[in-house]
Amino acid sequence: MTSTEADQWLDSVAFNSDGLVPAIAQDAASGRILMMAWMNRESLALTAESGKAVYWSRSRGKLWRKGESSGHEQLVQQIQLDCDGDTIVLCVTQQGGIACHTGRESCFFRTLDNGQWNITETVLKDPNQIYRKS
Amino acid sequence: MTSTEADQWLDSVAFNSDGLVPAIAQDAASGRILMMAWMNRESLALTAESGKAVYWSRSRGKLWRKGESSGHEQLVQQIQLDCDGDTIVLCVTQQGGIACHTGRESCFFRTLDNGQWNITETVLKDPNQIYRKS
Repeated sequence: MTSTEADQWLDSVAFNSDGLVPAIAQDAASGRILMMAWMNRESLALTAESGKAVYWSRSRGKLWRKGESSGHEQLVQQIQLDCDGDTIVLCVTQQGGIACHTGRESCFFRTLDNGQWNITETVLKDPNQIYRKS
Repeated sequence: MTSTEADQWLDSVAFNSDGLVPAIAQDAASGRILMMAWMNRESLALTAESGKAVYWSRSRGKLWRKGESSGHEQLVQQIQLDCDGDTIVLCVTQQGGIACHTGRESCFFRTLDNGQWNITETVLKDPNQIYRKS
């Protein structure tokens, strides 16, 4: 496969004016939606190549290799693209069972109930234990 | 409940500079991710109030009551918010079992396989049968 052929699938992705596409990570076993983050072309290519989720951190302005500091890597089982080509779904095996920086399985731990956001997911591990100071 | 109290939960949502937030619709029964669309404050409020998904159509620049032309409404079982407050998950019952305008269950019907996007979901109903001319 030449590099041009290798890149063709990336040309089908409709990155926005900032060169980014939203990527939804879903647990391959439970179906739980774990998080949504952004990818640029490079991070999507690296994700496909390495089999581990690599996002683009908008706040830090650099590649974000998920789990690089926490160990909570996401092993990518499938990459899916929607009809418009502007959103990605990653089916992942979540290492450590924790995707959220708060120590929860999923970032979507607040549920609307009678006009209030209730916390509906427990902290599995203290974030201070996840992000150790070196 | 006063209208100010009724709006407090909306103040926790971090709409972007365009006043929008991505909303992921997930089938409440199967866990399948059906689609991702955008909401503004009004559409999110209407979704919570009516129990049916209302998005903001960026291309048409107006409210998009999902299913208004196809009948494929989404009955909202749960609304979840992520840790950053900038992404919504809707757990929905998908009327007609079809979320995508192509007549498929999910918009995410393309799966990456060996550097190519393969179509991995069948068309359940011809779009011409879904969107009848009046």
